[in-house]
Amino acid sequence: MTVENKILITDCPDEKGLVAKITNVRFAQNLNIIKNSEFVDTLNGRFFMRTELEGCLDEESLLADMARALPSGSLSRIVNKGRKKLAVLVTTEAHCLGELLIKSHYGSLDADIVAILSNHQNLKELAEKFDVPFHFVDHRNIERVEHESNLLNTLSEYDFDYVVLAKYMRILTSKFVSVYPNRIINIHHSFLPAFIGSKPYHQAHKRGVKIIGATAHFVNNDLDDGPIITQGVVSVDHSYKPEDMARAGREVEESVLTGALQRVIEEKVLVFGNRTVVFD
Amino acid sequence: MTVENKILITDCPDEKGLVAKITNVRFAQNLNIIKNSEFVDTLNGRFFMRTELEGCLDEESLLADMARALPSGSLSRIVNKGRKKLAVLVTTEAHCLGELLIKSHYGSLDADIVAILSNHQNLKELAEKFDVPFHFVDHRNIERVEHESNLLNTLSEYDFDYVVLAKYMRILTSKFVSVYPNRIINIHHSFLPAFIGSKPYHQAHKRGVKIIGATAHFVNNDLDDGPIITQGVVSVDHSYKPEDMARAGREVEESVLTGALQRVIEEKVLVFGNRTVVFD
Amino acid sequence: MTVENKILITDCPDEKGLVAKITNVRFAQNLNIIKNSEFVDTLNGRFFMRTELEGCLDEESLLADMARALPSGSLSRIVNKGRKKLAVLVTTEAHCLGELLIKSHYGSLDADIVAILSNHQNLKELAEKFDVPFHFVDHRNIERVEHESNLLNTLSEYDFDYVVLAKYMRILTSKFVSVYPNRIINIHHSFLPAFIGSKPYHQAHKRGVKIIGATAHFVNNDLDDGPIITQGVVSVDHSYKPEDMARAGREVEESVLTGALQRVIEEKVLVFGNRTVVFD
Amino acid sequence: MTVENKILITDCPDEKGLVAKITNVRFAQNLNIIKNSEFVDTLNGRFFMRTELEGCLDEESLLADMARALPSGSLSRIVNKGRKKLAVLVTTEAHCLGELLIKSHYGSLDADIVAILSNHQNLKELAEKFDVPFHFVDHRNIERVEHESNLLNTLSEYDFDYVVLAKYMRILTSKFVSVYPNRIINIHHSFLPAFIGSKPYHQAHKRGVKIIGATAHFVNNDLDDGPIITQGVVSVDHSYKPEDMARAGREVEESVLTGALQRVIEEKVLVFGNRTVVFD
Repeated sequence: MTVENKILITDCPDEKGLVAKITNVRFAQNLNIIKNSEFVDTLNGRFFMRTELEGCLDEESLLADMARALPSGSLSRIVNKGRKKLAVLVTTEAHCLGELLIKSHYGSLDADIVAILSNHQNLKELAEKFDVPFHFVDHRNIERVEHESNLLNTLSEYDFDYVVLAKYMRILTSKFVSVYPNRIINIHHSFLPAFIGSKPYHQAHKRGVKIIGATAHFVNNDLDDGPIITQGVVSVDHSYKPEDMARAGREVEESVLTGALQRVIEEKVLVFGNRTVVFD
Repeated sequence: MTVENKILITDCPDEKGLVAKITNVRFAQNLNIIKNSEFVDTLNGRFFMRTELEGCLDEESLLADMARALPSGSLSRIVNKGRKKLAVLVTTEAHCLGELLIKSHYGSLDADIVAILSNHQNLKELAEKFDVPFHFVDHRNIERVEHESNLLNTLSEYDFDYVVLAKYMRILTSKFVSVYPNRIINIHHSFLPAFIGSKPYHQAHKRGVKIIGATAHFVNNDLDDGPIITQGVVSVDHSYKPEDMARAGREVEESVLTGALQRVIEEKVLVFGNRTVVFD
Repeated sequence: MTVENKILITDCPDEKGLVAKITNVRFAQNLNIIKNSEFVDTLNGRFFMRTELEGCLDEESLLADMARALPSGSLSRIVNKGRKKLAVLVTTEAHCLGELLIKSHYGSLDADIVAILSNHQNLKELAEKFDVPFHFVDHRNIERVEHESNLLNTLSEYDFDYVVLAKYMRILTSKFVSVYPNRIINIHHSFLPAFIGSKPYHQAHKRGVKIIGATAHFVNNDLDDGPIITQGVVSVDHSYKPEDMARAGREVEESVLTGALQRVIEEKVLVFGNRTVVFD
Repeated sequence: MTVENKILITDCPDEKGLVAKITNVRFAQNLNIIKNSEFVDTLNGRFFMRTELEGCLDEESLLADMARALPSGSLSRIVNKGRKKLAVLVTTEAHCLGELLIKSHYGSLDADIVAILSNHQNLKELAEKFDVPFHFVDHRNIERVEHESNLLNTLSEYDFDYVVLAKYMRILTSKFVSVYPNRIINIHHSFLPAFIGSKPYHQAHKRGVKIIGATAHFVNNDLDDGPIITQGVVSVDHSYKPEDMARAGREVEESVLTGALQRVIEEKVLVFGNRTVVFD
């Protein structure tokens, strides 16, 4: 029953006196607060709180007390602090996967990569350098639904917290996506909502943009339309050809993806509708 | 004939030996180079050069020599270094106009504002603080073409280098725009090409973006689609309501617009098709 | 007794159960929370909370309840939301003063400038454009202590919340500074702690730096050594002469100063020792 | 004799007509220019040019012609475009080495790492993942001069262009440094010239800074005092403990180091005195 370093997430309709109610529950449970972050979405009438707790934590009792104290529609939950597990889907590009592997390896990303799945073979060698199981899941000559079924079967062999699309260049069906609600994270090759679709850097070059960006977001339905977690940009100029923009874009993709994942891993990202609350 | 501090702009089809040809023309004219910037757009086969010159400059003779040396299709020209004149169109928002006035006044922007035109009265007081003529050009009860004609008539009373749309919230017809090719500069309330159109910050809020931006661009035809000069961004988070995003957006608009204008004023911005070359 | 839009600042030694105690006080007073921000400085054992309150607020009673609930050493206080008043000290540079005047004028900075004091005459005209009283307080032929006494006399004629040193280029004695603890805000021409002292841009140029910055900070004793509020930077390159760096520096100074002031005005900045807590 | 893709670096005292002279040499040699960048340091009277050449290049003849055309004191040279070789010195921190290895591996950094030297054993495993020779060069129980002699002996077994200090935490003597003038690149754990010395993040935390940075620079004599190549920053706030600042600092260190190296590899960085010219 003694568990330290838990995080209590409160996500419920806003109403007067909420903080007092929640605080009293925590107080009655004799829990100490290490860090507390709150946000009231006054436009939508929703209350969000993230509390790092210390003390002898009876999860069942705490959640029951919370359920009694909070209005209906609450999505309170208790999550673990600390290292998480990731399954990673890739196609052929190495840069994001490489970044995840190296940062996972030396500890800058608080996550272990438990499996890498790809519809191509060429990143197998990179996976093996870091002793991560690599699964080639061929998409040729089969229907999309069968391919996704094969992916799901492979994923089902592993225990993981999140699926990361680290430049997985195939669109996932809503059926696949619905298996992992708010648990699939994509890095988009652009500053959403600009340049949705293919060849974004050719589009950006043609438009003569001076800044390009990348967007990390949850995938809940339509590929590029889910709740945004973080975005980053980099300046470019007239001397950048599309391939130079792509190179600059890859750098941003890497840093935006790892930045977003670190916040997700620390349970600082709450999804509400198509938006996110990202606590410090 | 003795003129110092001129800038020679070369803008022509690329071909082998161009730099040698141009350099020899300058050398024959006994001109010294203060600063030289070049760019070859290899994708489109176009050569751009900006040279700050010092010496006894016979403009006619220099341009004639350049015309002989360069391939046909050259757009060489000589422009003045130094302070420029701006006509400014506004609607009701004060922030960009205020920034231009104050920076023009204390010298951070190397430009004088010679006239301010608006279809509203409320910025008149601000214009008068800085002793700049303010023209109320009413758009009510008349056709767009007549309103633009009135604007053009008012503008024709002034000598200026550029027209600045400092939050002028009306679409200009291509007829108006064609009077000042590559001389109308707009600040767009968004990170183009995202959120074109009205209520961009409501769009951005709804989409849950984490970065908002602004774009300064030439207006050559379609309002928001001209060659981009500079873009800037600022980070926002879940706690930003649409009005907070708008406030942050105004800050970026100001700094992007003045930054773009300063580069244009220094003759560092060359337009080619729908893109710009912006030299350091 | 009915006052809306107050902010309760809690600043006290950290101890277990603090949040519950504070929350219960607010609850007992029947106050609603619009926005709540907390920070526990675990290294120094200090607790900070900023709460935007709504409701019928009896300040005296609330503070008395807080005093009973909190450990000794608490610096709880209630402050007003909304527009503040600034007295501004300048020397000869117009850029920061200009920025403050224009942003105060059109509302981007939630503050009124009630007086401008300078030991030079040249910014008088700018002050008068915005109908702000300008006081020339001559420093020639008198001792520093007498000059500061004259400044203090002039300041004493006005009611203001903060003194802003908007490029006031004279060192203030600790005697002057002690009159306005945590109420004097300076913009420093550098990225502190680099390049303290005179001619910072010549120093920066000589060192060949690639980024320059500016620092807004409270002045509590030694001029450049007070609690930092915000810092900003801008990239420069080899082509920047010291005067170009100075120009770029001025742009950063303006935006860092106004950004810092806005946060101070919103009562988001708490000082603790030589550091600040800056809430979102 | 036919070599494509060479870069001609001109670095000489400035004088009138230089560009014409250089251009005529290139023209006489029938070389085409792919990209040309120039900079005149008017404060120090020095001229810098970097030209990407295409054509049948007789290096000896070209350099002889250049020597005749340029004033004495010229440091003209021809260098290769393309992939370079790096020797890397590390101590115990993995993040910069990991970044170099992964980016070298998948091609984002145009360099091969030919050897890794360390006075500790713990990064050996990481080196071996990427099949790079790892040399443990023990510093215990020997004099500094002997340790450096052992490092130099090990380095002498390899062919490389640059030595990278990827968090090598020992000071190198000027004797060691003089072996590789302008060829040793260090990543400094701070925004130079701030926080020189040990425990920079504790210093930064104590000072309450709001931005931390990193500096990549050549090491020519005093460890932290060489010509700066690039600098980068990241925002921090009051909630960052020294270890959080260190983590943020590591991220900046990685990106600043790889960014600086990429520019050096592309021969875009010229050293002049204690400053650098970094061409686009």
